[in-house]
Amino acid sequence: MSTTFLTGIKAIAFDADDTMWINEPYFQQIENKFCSLLEDYATHHSISQELFKTEIQNLNCYGYGVKGFTLSMIEAALTISNNTIPIEVIDKIIGFGKDLLSRPVELIDGIEDVLKLLKNNYKIVVATKGDLLDQETKLKKSGLENYFHHIEVMSDKKESDYLKLIRHLDIKPNEFIMVGNSLKSDILPVLSLGGHAIHIPFHTTWAHEKIDHHIVHENFKQFEKISDILKIL
Amino acid sequence: MSTTFLTGIKAIAFDADDTMWINEPYFQQIENKFCSLLEDYATHHSISQELFKTEIQNLNCYGYGVKGFTLSMIEAALTISNNTIPIEVIDKIIGFGKDLLSRPVELIDGIEDVLKLLKNNYKIVVATKGDLLDQETKLKKSGLENYFHHIEVMSDKKESDYLKLIRHLDIKPNEFIMVGNSLKSDILPVLSLGGHAIHIPFHTTWAHEKIDHHIVHENFKQFEKISDILKIL
Repeated sequence: MSTTFLTGIKAIAFDADDTMWINEPYFQQIENKFCSLLEDYATHHSISQELFKTEIQNLNCYGYGVKGFTLSMIEAALTISNNTIPIEVIDKIIGFGKDLLSRPVELIDGIEDVLKLLKNNYKIVVATKGDLLDQETKLKKSGLENYFHHIEVMSDKKESDYLKLIRHLDIKPNEFIMVGNSLKSDILPVLSLGGHAIHIPFHTTWAHEKIDHHIVHENFKQFEKISDILKIL
Repeated sequence: MSTTFLTGIKAIAFDADDTMWINEPYFQQIENKFCSLLEDYATHHSISQELFKTEIQNLNCYGYGVKGFTLSMIEAALTISNNTIPIEVIDKIIGFGKDLLSRPVELIDGIEDVLKLLKNNYKIVVATKGDLLDQETKLKKSGLENYFHHIEVMSDKKESDYLKLIRHLDIKPNEFIMVGNSLKSDILPVLSLGGHAIHIPFHTTWAHEKIDHHIVHENFKQFEKISDILKIL
């Protein structure tokens, strides 16, 4: 980061899933298994589509995270099979959810070196969506917990949610940087508030987080990998 | 509260479910419906016991809240029926969970008067377990949101969780009061840290929160109803 980019910055927030550790590929593995489980009823493509539709319909009541994803898989299985799937399928889907919740955490290369260097000069926090207990558990498993002032699990990542986080940090938006892999959730709302944002794309993105957007903004940087942040410190 | 009880207090945290609004009776209504749904397979009593066992086994992976409760109902239904229940039962259980998530919020008498009076002199916060989005949504529906500095949804209410909350409030334990209906979750861990606690029992308590304990402690008060706090302000 050039001196100008960092001037006046007091706090840096890191997204968790697919920014600090691998996540979306695990969900996609489970989704593939889910499609295979139901392949007598529909094509993989239409099963995926129905699951996605169910997830989005349920976002308002379930929010983000593995538990809502599991409930949506069960609901989609009932719909796709028109209530004809064998009951054992439900048991398997519950197992898929528990599998996601008990995965070891696989760090993204270079994240620890970045946190080590930033820790001394900035208040650094985790800012993530998902289930509260699941994200806290993953942070503990990651071994990165001690680098962070705290973890903020957010029910959503809209402007109003970031405003709350920034107020909670007791700073102004232009003293804040958000680092993450989702343009929609990590970058655009923060820039829009007058904050700074660094985008590190991840090779796999959930359909709900995809946007077609090219960003040019003085408070915005994009790097290929997380360790690229080091080059300009 | 006597002057001595309030001397030096800077922040007061309120539990949410069954302290500010009614909750446990709704869960018990749903549990009764769940038992009726499975009454061909076992007695209501043994269905309740199996459900409770499943919930406790799943606490480590699901944490507290409606989504985990719904997944545990589904899992218990499979166990109780030895995988023989009709698939439509699963659909009904998913509906039970969504019903819990969409209930209107019914305030406990007197809570607003108490908050009104405390708001001016203390930082007041909500400290609750459960699903993040669900608790935030209930706080919005309650109309009480503006009385609070913020809502802290906690993955558990053990001493270490309260220490985090107290640190986050930037105060010392003896400057903190917790108000709640659960001796186990709201009172004992806080007293043990050197904080203050006010217990307002609720007529219905989840088995997991029940303890057999008689508390005598200089930092502890017990009132019959939340509005009793007003009498000694």
